[in-house]
Amino acid sequence: MTAGKFIVIEGLEGAGKTTAINTVAAVLKPHHDLVFTREPGGTPLAEALRTLIKQSVNDEPLTYKAELLMFYAARIQLIDNVIKPALQAGKWVVGDRHDMSTQAYQGGGRQLDAKFMSMLKQMVLGDFKPDLTIYMDIAPEIGLMRARQRGELDRIEKESLAFFERIRARYLEIARADPSVIIIDAAQDIDKVTDDIKIKLNQWLKFHPVN
Amino acid sequence: MTAGKFIVIEGLEGAGKTTAINTVAAVLKPHHDLVFTREPGGTPLAEALRTLIKQSVNDEPLTYKAELLMFYAARIQLIDNVIKPALQAGKWVVGDRHDMSTQAYQGGGRQLDAKFMSMLKQMVLGDFKPDLTIYMDIAPEIGLMRARQRGELDRIEKESLAFFERIRARYLEIARADPSVIIIDAAQDIDKVTDDIKIKLNQWLKFHPVN
Ligand SMILES: Nc1ncnc2c1ncn2[C@@H]1O[C@H](COP(=O)(O)OP(=O)(O)OP(=O)(O)O)[C@@H](O)[C@H]1O
Ligand SMILES: Nc1ncnc2c1ncn2[C@@H]1O[C@H](COP(=O)(O)OP(=O)(O)OP(=O)(O)O)[C@@H](O)[C@H]1O
Ligand SMILES: [Mg+2]
Ligand SMILES: [Mg+2]
Repeated sequence: MTAGKFIVIEGLEGAGKTTAINTVAAVLKPHHDLVFTREPGGTPLAEALRTLIKQSVNDEPLTYKAELLMFYAARIQLIDNVIKPALQAGKWVVGDRHDMSTQAYQGGGRQLDAKFMSMLKQMVLGDFKPDLTIYMDIAPEIGLMRARQRGELDRIEKESLAFFERIRARYLEIARADPSVIIIDAAQDIDKVTDDIKIKLNQWLKFHPVN
Repeated sequence: MTAGKFIVIEGLEGAGKTTAINTVAAVLKPHHDLVFTREPGGTPLAEALRTLIKQSVNDEPLTYKAELLMFYAARIQLIDNVIKPALQAGKWVVGDRHDMSTQAYQGGGRQLDAKFMSMLKQMVLGDFKPDLTIYMDIAPEIGLMRARQRGELDRIEKESLAFFERIRARYLEIARADPSVIIIDAAQDIDKVTDDIKIKLNQWLKFHPVN
């Protein structure tokens, strides 16, 4: 049996990731068994870590290092207990965020040391990476406006605009350097975004035939 | 004002760490303001991580890497939010376990890669380390027997004897190589152990005068 593929949707809050995941799912569903993940989260322990990361606990400052380590703890739980077993069983995994978020938010946003970041990534993940990443590119003002309409902002969403500008810049830098990343202009109207995703995903599928 | 000192008590479960801490506290209390810490734990977030580490969540296997990352997330929260501020305020900090536990349990016990371990430690802790460590050396059979009398064993305490033998060996290896570690024969009767700690701690204090 052919092993499955791991497709990740990335982008700022409100970029349209959840919307994009529905589009990707519609394209893939006729052909593959799908498993959906979100990060941080996707296992009971990883979801518990997500809760700790999203809320400050008793107003205790969360150090940048602890935040980073908790993201990787959640990620390795998800990879080992969910993603790899699914791929090995021939299923396709569609991820709402993955390591590119950490590179963009902790590396770009929080400006953590690049060598520290790349060593930690290599130590924890080794060579594991998505087969395809769809990066939903959007100006943070627009994304945050969309996200705000959904309700209260969490600890990370309350950061400054400059923080999100740095994240977007790092996202674009990585996306342009990595041929496994497709960039979508997520500021377009929703039908155009959906069409773009369908066209680019189908192109990619043509060059990555299964069985 | 003189900065405080960080004194850590280390050893296997049931070695007599808590008992030793009371001895250390009795020696120091007349002379210093004391702060007590335990690891993992000691801040609200670190205690939440301790709970996640100690119990398996919904029977989800905790990967060795996630366990290690969670220990370091808890540790850096404790160092940055509790230990360093206390030391800077001139207080003395008495720790129930610290990084030597991670080296012994994850490095020796779980046999995680030595280079991975030392890089992670350096990345997270930098040059921060205890001024003095009192290592309570005991055969695991004796320590576990003492601990068992206290009640139910947690996830880690249920490991095999060979696991704890490897931990003790690694503890001894580190203790013998590091001049800031004092080794106590913790298999002796409790009065003899207490005397040994008092004598060696007072010797150390003589060579580390404050103000
Ligand atoms: N192209 C678009 N134009 C306008 N609105 C959009 C567009 N795409 C999505 N939206 C709307 O913006 C909001 C956020 O979209 P969505 O939830 O898909 O973003 P997200 O990236 O998943 O956000 P989060 O990071 O918070 O999960 C939703 O109300 C959605 O309907
Ligand atoms: N030298 C000793 N001889 C016999 N019993 C001892 C000795 N030291 C401590 N004990 C007893 O053994 C038990 C475990 O001791 P203690 O709680 O100090 O160990 P610990 O290292 O803190 O254990 P844990 O790792 O579980 O916290 C207690 O009931 C204590 O009274
Ligand atoms: Mg979403
Ligand atoms: Mg104890």
